[in-house]
Amino acid sequence: MAYLNEHYAKLQAGYLFPEIARRVKAFNDAHPEVATRLIRCGIGDVTEPLPAACIRALHKAVDEMGAHDTFRGYGPEQGYDFLRHAIAQHDFRDRGIAIEDDEIFVSDGSKCDGGHILDIFGVGNRIAVMNPVYPVYVDTNVMAGNTGEPVAGGYEGLVYLPCTAANNFVAALPDESVDIIYLCYPNNPTGAVATRAQLTSWVKYAREHHAIILFDAAYEAYILTPGIPHSIYEIEGARECAIEFRSFSKNGGFTGLRCAFTVVPKNLLAYTRAGESRPLHPLWLRHHTTKFNGVAYPVQRAAEAIYSPEGRQQVDALVGFYMENARLLREAVVAAGLQVYGGVDAPYIWVRGPEDISSWALFDFLLQDANIVTTPGSGFGSAGEGYFRISAFNSRERTQEASQRLAALDFTKARQFA
Amino acid sequence: MAYLNEHYAKLQAGYLFPEIARRVKAFNDAHPEVATRLIRCGIGDVTEPLPAACIRALHKAVDEMGAHDTFRGYGPEQGYDFLRHAIAQHDFRDRGIAIEDDEIFVSDGSKCDGGHILDIFGVGNRIAVMNPVYPVYVDTNVMAGNTGEPVAGGYEGLVYLPCTAANNFVAALPDESVDIIYLCYPNNPTGAVATRAQLTSWVKYAREHHAIILFDAAYEAYILTPGIPHSIYEIEGARECAIEFRSFSKNGGFTGLRCAFTVVPKNLLAYTRAGESRPLHPLWLRHHTTKFNGVAYPVQRAAEAIYSPEGRQQVDALVGFYMENARLLREAVVAAGLQVYGGVDAPYIWVRGPEDISSWALFDFLLQDANIVTTPGSGFGSAGEGYFRISAFNSRERTQEASQRLAALDFTKARQFA
Repeated sequence: MAYLNEHYAKLQAGYLFPEIARRVKAFNDAHPEVATRLIRCGIGDVTEPLPAACIRALHKAVDEMGAHDTFRGYGPEQGYDFLRHAIAQHDFRDRGIAIEDDEIFVSDGSKCDGGHILDIFGVGNRIAVMNPVYPVYVDTNVMAGNTGEPVAGGYEGLVYLPCTAANNFVAALPDESVDIIYLCYPNNPTGAVATRAQLTSWVKYAREHHAIILFDAAYEAYILTPGIPHSIYEIEGARECAIEFRSFSKNGGFTGLRCAFTVVPKNLLAYTRAGESRPLHPLWLRHHTTKFNGVAYPVQRAAEAIYSPEGRQQVDALVGFYMENARLLREAVVAAGLQVYGGVDAPYIWVRGPEDISSWALFDFLLQDANIVTTPGSGFGSAGEGYFRISAFNSRERTQEASQRLAALDFTKARQFA
Repeated sequence: MAYLNEHYAKLQAGYLFPEIARRVKAFNDAHPEVATRLIRCGIGDVTEPLPAACIRALHKAVDEMGAHDTFRGYGPEQGYDFLRHAIAQHDFRDRGIAIEDDEIFVSDGSKCDGGHILDIFGVGNRIAVMNPVYPVYVDTNVMAGNTGEPVAGGYEGLVYLPCTAANNFVAALPDESVDIIYLCYPNNPTGAVATRAQLTSWVKYAREHHAIILFDAAYEAYILTPGIPHSIYEIEGARECAIEFRSFSKNGGFTGLRCAFTVVPKNLLAYTRAGESRPLHPLWLRHHTTKFNGVAYPVQRAAEAIYSPEGRQQVDALVGFYMENARLLREAVVAAGLQVYGGVDAPYIWVRGPEDISSWALFDFLLQDANIVTTPGSGFGSAGEGYFRISAFNSRERTQEASQRLAALDFTKARQFA
């Protein structure tokens, strides 16, 4: 009799984005006349075409795949040397961070790696997540059996670290001892960034507790403020306690191409139940080579093109484009009299609604009165209640239109949707 | 203190292909003068360029990704409807097999899916694998904790099903009760196929034991003999007991592009520890949407092109090309006086060496005396001892040269490498 993984039954049915899709569809069905007015500022997906340097690299690589002398079959699972080298050199060594080429594992997505990384950890680790939090960190731990049953506001067994306006959305160190800590900066959903001092205190905590930080830096390219760390490895000692996830999704706009990478330093250790330390690099190497078969060759060439002088310029322009959207949206929300966070070093704007109005009420109000789709803050965790997220990934035209509508809103009217 | 997955420590160090690479490198370093004579018939990687229909589809999709109006970001994790529909229609419904579009999950590789599928199963399943076996089935079960320690010839706790010349390399039903069964036809490494009667007996066994068959049909396109099933779902009742893995790697030559799919029928059930049945489709859907983010859009368009009239013709030509290689290699080995299997409905030739000569002795003999790289049968399991595998994935020129060398060999001389 084949037994299934019963942990899946603990997963709460309403994954955030399907629920949003359901409400948008219901609204569209009820009001077909305003369908064309709808502006989607919900999910964090890029809208601009791929950089020209990447398009050119793709065409060239596709031609190689069509010719005898240049065809490539299986590549190295960890990624081609040309890409691992470009990443390690430009993203790390050029910035004074000691990362070797073979500490870079090229993959098809940060979401994928963030889920699979749990395979190399044992059961019984105490997991800390921020609140609000990107739902995938939580769900993959539920699937792996690292949590108990769902309870109000989360799952038993997880340590939730509240991120609120009071702490600038940077989690305080936990009072208790935890083993694995998810940190995401620039943050999705709050758009917050962590200072060097804050990250330093986390690295110190992790080293003292022999804990490991899973650092999601997928939005690193959006950091514009000087002095804010782009990588956890800018912090001394982080090589001994952190795995970093990076992505080409949000800088190069690769959400439809699929390429990312994970950094596993060779001197990062974890422990057996008997208390013996072992390096994690060989485990992830074994995982990656056994359960993965590399990223499409043309896509790796496109990722390499991001590091060319032309590619960098084009990525800077893309980031600048979305950040100008963010500025417009921030100003609009301020004009409407609301408190706004994020949107300075991140493409997400995190907005506090008027007192005592729930996130879903704000969502429904924005959908019905302004025909703007946002993401309710409570969907990311209990500490997001009363907030909503606006994504800056949109065309300029739609952003301007959304900004005009937002600025003119009286958000106290959202109370009726409670 | 972060705990690691201690099951990884059970994995035996010498994964087959790295060991082959090591011996080839040592030979090359010792004999640089014959490096250009080396013919690689080891790993099963295609050598011919992608079909023209796929190249055209790739270029077109890349252009779409470079333009505002046609750019695509995140696609559905399960694959675009256009591809799921093409697969379900052409590979299944056109052949009289009832598979719905949403039972198809498009992925980046069969190796990946075959590893990840274990995530939706509970611990404590009794796993049966063929012997010899594609190593990934075994290694992923070791990682998941479904085995005990390594012992001579395998791992404790796994049920090995010997596949030998005596049973035409099709496993007999086990005497004991097992919960999950890996079957692979056309088989890697033996090149054997299973008849309808043989697969029917497996489906009957699985249904009686509420077991699940994980059916790897990655080499389905190479079946030329009429009447040999291309899919497990050709067998009545298989929808209730089987998951099928398919790939575009070996028909379209996508090993460097990465696209495959897995079929999970909606009426396939597994069990809770309390003995309650539950459908597996929602679990795999949840896994796929949480830990995967879809295949690159251009690659999905290339896969779709395989089902066009032009694409089918080009794939047939590719298969025909490699199967002519297989015929040449088979004849050569017969001429050398050895017993040969496979290579008729599969791109692998499975060769029995002279009595009492080990697989690694045969490997070293072929490397040193004929400068041909093969794969030692014992690397796939104890029942492969005394055999070696020749891959038909090669250029015609190299295949002809390899065939001439093979036909002229006196394999009894391999005894000196014992």
